Amino acid sequence: MYEVELKVRADHEPVRERLAELDAEPQGIVEQVDTYYDHPVRDFAETDEALRIRRETYEDESTARVTYKGPLVEEASKTREEWETGVDDGETMASILDELGFAPAATVEKIRERFSCDGYTVTLDNVAGLGEYVEVETEAEEESIDSAREGAIRLLQDLGLDADEQVRTSYLGLLLDESA
Amino acid sequence: MYEVELKVRADHEPVRERLAELDAEPQGIVEQVDTYYDHPVRDFAETDEALRIRRETYEDESTARVTYKGPLVEEASKTREEWETGVDDGETMASILDELGFAPAATVEKIRERFSCDGYTVTLDNVAGLGEYVEVETEAEEESIDSAREGAIRLLQDLGLDADEQVRTSYLGLLLDESA
Repeated sequence: MYEVELKVRADHEPVRERLAELDAEPQGIVEQVDTYYDHPVRDFAETDEALRIRRETYEDESTARVTYKGPLVEEASKTREEWETGVDDGETMASILDELGFAPAATVEKIRERFSCDGYTVTLDNVAGLGEYVEVETEAEEESIDSAREGAIRLLQDLGLDADEQVRTSYLGLLLDESA
Repeated sequence: MYEVELKVRADHEPVRERLAELDAEPQGIVEQVDTYYDHPVRDFAETDEALRIRRETYEDESTARVTYKGPLVEEASKTREEWETGVDDGETMASILDELGFAPAATVEKIRERFSCDGYTVTLDNVAGLGEYVEVETEAEEESIDSAREGAIRLLQDLGLDADEQVRTSYLGLLLDESA
């Protein structure tokens, strides 16, 4: 499966009103703390990969997941291959990565408010140090990436947003740019 | 915490009888399939480390764990630092390791019958391609490793076994020796 996503910088309040008009279904609010790792020998900035441990808090329950993101396979929609699994103990997973030579590179903290709408997930992200963003996302098989992307563009328009203003840089990249 | 363990090659039947006489508590039978990985640049045979995904089946329930074992800190008892956490999906974890440049090096399959006895876990291992082994194991803080090891030796004696016949090589190592 491939992740198809479009992200724009946008104030949340007008988008939240449009979501209500579209009968989008609220999926709750989560807090995410993401730690990104450097590979012991590969330069992930060069290879366009990422390894992440995500600690998530949802309704007072904390969970952790480890995720690998491969290089872009489709530039326009930021589509990449992704492997992710839950882990029982995020701290232990961090220790294992540390022992294997992976070093924490950066941390991204955000509060995400999710809505389900027409087969897409719309996420209102409030990112520490960056501000408010809106993301439209779905999963697609390789052969339906194009139609999934077209649907995402239409949904962004319905929300009063413009896909031409897409921010292709990840929050991690934006934060690294800010600090550079 | 450190893992203190002693392992000997031994037919299971007489040991099972002694465990019953010692009122050891049966802890059930599990099937384990362990996949060991090579590091992308480190030679784990040189550095005496190991990275493993263990798929375990217990009473028709399958689980998976990822484990890092550090180099020996105490040669006699095979004591090493160990980090382990459960993962929701062992296959996905295997894909993540694969993407990061870790290659499957060997697989160890065994059926383990466990007993609890005097604060130790006694395990009767039937290892595919190797045969029957008995392992006495406990966890100890660094300052109590010696006394934990002495207790393990006494328990082995109580089971009619001889700690002098300790097999220091891991099942992985024994299987690699067989195939060499």
